[in-house]
Amino acid sequence: MTEPLTLVLLRHGNSDWNQKNLFTGWVDVRLSEQGRGEAVRAGELLAESGIKPDVLYTSVLSRAIQTANLALDSADRLWIPVKRSWRLNERHYGALQGKDKAQTLAEYGNEQFMTWRRSFDTPPPPLDDNSEWSQVGDERYADLGDDVPRTECLKDVIDRMLPYWHSDITVDLAAGKTVLVTAHGNSLRALVKHLDGISDEDIAELNIPTGIPLVYKLNSNFEPLGPGEYLDPEAAAAGAAAVAAQGAKK
Amino acid sequence: MTEPLTLVLLRHGNSDWNQKNLFTGWVDVRLSEQGRGEAVRAGELLAESGIKPDVLYTSVLSRAIQTANLALDSADRLWIPVKRSWRLNERHYGALQGKDKAQTLAEYGNEQFMTWRRSFDTPPPPLDDNSEWSQVGDERYADLGDDVPRTECLKDVIDRMLPYWHSDITVDLAAGKTVLVTAHGNSLRALVKHLDGISDEDIAELNIPTGIPLVYKLNSNFEPLGPGEYLDPEAAAAGAAAVAAQGAKK
Repeated sequence: MTEPLTLVLLRHGNSDWNQKNLFTGWVDVRLSEQGRGEAVRAGELLAESGIKPDVLYTSVLSRAIQTANLALDSADRLWIPVKRSWRLNERHYGALQGKDKAQTLAEYGNEQFMTWRRSFDTPPPPLDDNSEWSQVGDERYADLGDDVPRTECLKDVIDRMLPYWHSDITVDLAAGKTVLVTAHGNSLRALVKHLDGISDEDIAELNIPTGIPLVYKLNSNFEPLGPGEYLDPEAAAAGAAAVAAQGAKK
Repeated sequence: MTEPLTLVLLRHGNSDWNQKNLFTGWVDVRLSEQGRGEAVRAGELLAESGIKPDVLYTSVLSRAIQTANLALDSADRLWIPVKRSWRLNERHYGALQGKDKAQTLAEYGNEQFMTWRRSFDTPPPPLDDNSEWSQVGDERYADLGDDVPRTECLKDVIDRMLPYWHSDITVDLAAGKTVLVTAHGNSLRALVKHLDGISDEDIAELNIPTGIPLVYKLNSNFEPLGPGEYLDPEAAAAGAAAVAAQGAKK
């Protein structure tokens, strides 16, 4: 296997519910116009950098798939093979799905709010199966049977994401393929935590900006040869700060 | 296996080169704005009809992939698995790729023009490997080595498309999946010829309109239980007439 291996992570752009400041999780909302623009720009950044994805991994949520489709279109790589898995989905936000972030902050206070948002192993209360925001009965999760999540903490995301990393994504990396993973804030935080060996405590401080490709060079053990690098570092820093400030927004 | 099996064929919408009236073949042009609208409408037709594709097959040409992406977005089925193959590509138009249709008609006369467009087994002259419209060296065909086509007649398309139908597409149909195939005028004519048992002579008269899903119900031997039905028959008739008139356009 020829080192370094190349892994590109891309968080989907701004969605309709990001704009409305609602907790989204597994609710299948679409990109906003802003998010579509971010996705197109992400593809341009890839093209400008000369990085050519050979295979795409996405979640089964439309906003990640839209992001990948738009980015690959502007990178002129629409034709590469695509693999999708619910294991790359955003964290299931439990009973918070569909709730306003600022209102939740006001109602429950900052401590509870930050626990739900950033605690490593405390999930929000489970979402009721009868909620309009529940994924129970959603055809795309038919294979999961009754194991469809009702809520998740970051630890839960790691536990369901990492097996897929080991079973599928690393296999394509080992074959020398440049892998693009287009996913979500928390499934990508889970992967970055694993790659960079970030502690359960420190991961709370890590924010991944939307729409900016994050490039890792890996050795043959799939360990980073250095820190992941954003293709537009300036925009990435501004974006990460914006993510950190979420909830404070009115 | 539960009959009937459901197969949906979708020809990509109007492309930039359709609008310019150029022979396209394997040249990787994009959809025009009109074509994008057709693709969105195709997805709406699918949604209105209640037909839910479980798996998507596309060529590796961007205009078919864009069509599928837009149609599945408006049908709310972005998350289904995707399989791509060059075997679903448009017919390679040989030395005609990049040439103006009306000019070619004027230059070579109607008989030669119609032979190249509709002859079952006479391909146009081969495209020179040094042409800017050649696919020799295109990364997406790396697996083909030096077998990348330089020209094709419809018989050639059948010979490379049918093995994929038998090896892959029918397997998903046999598993009870509703299969969407988003491809091109000639790869779909090749498939329809096979399904409907159309003779080598009569296939010349068959025109498939762009952007309108064509639905086949099949028995367990993958034979049609009746004629394929367009989801918008009126638009389909108008579209087929427009395709037949190509070249005559100034």
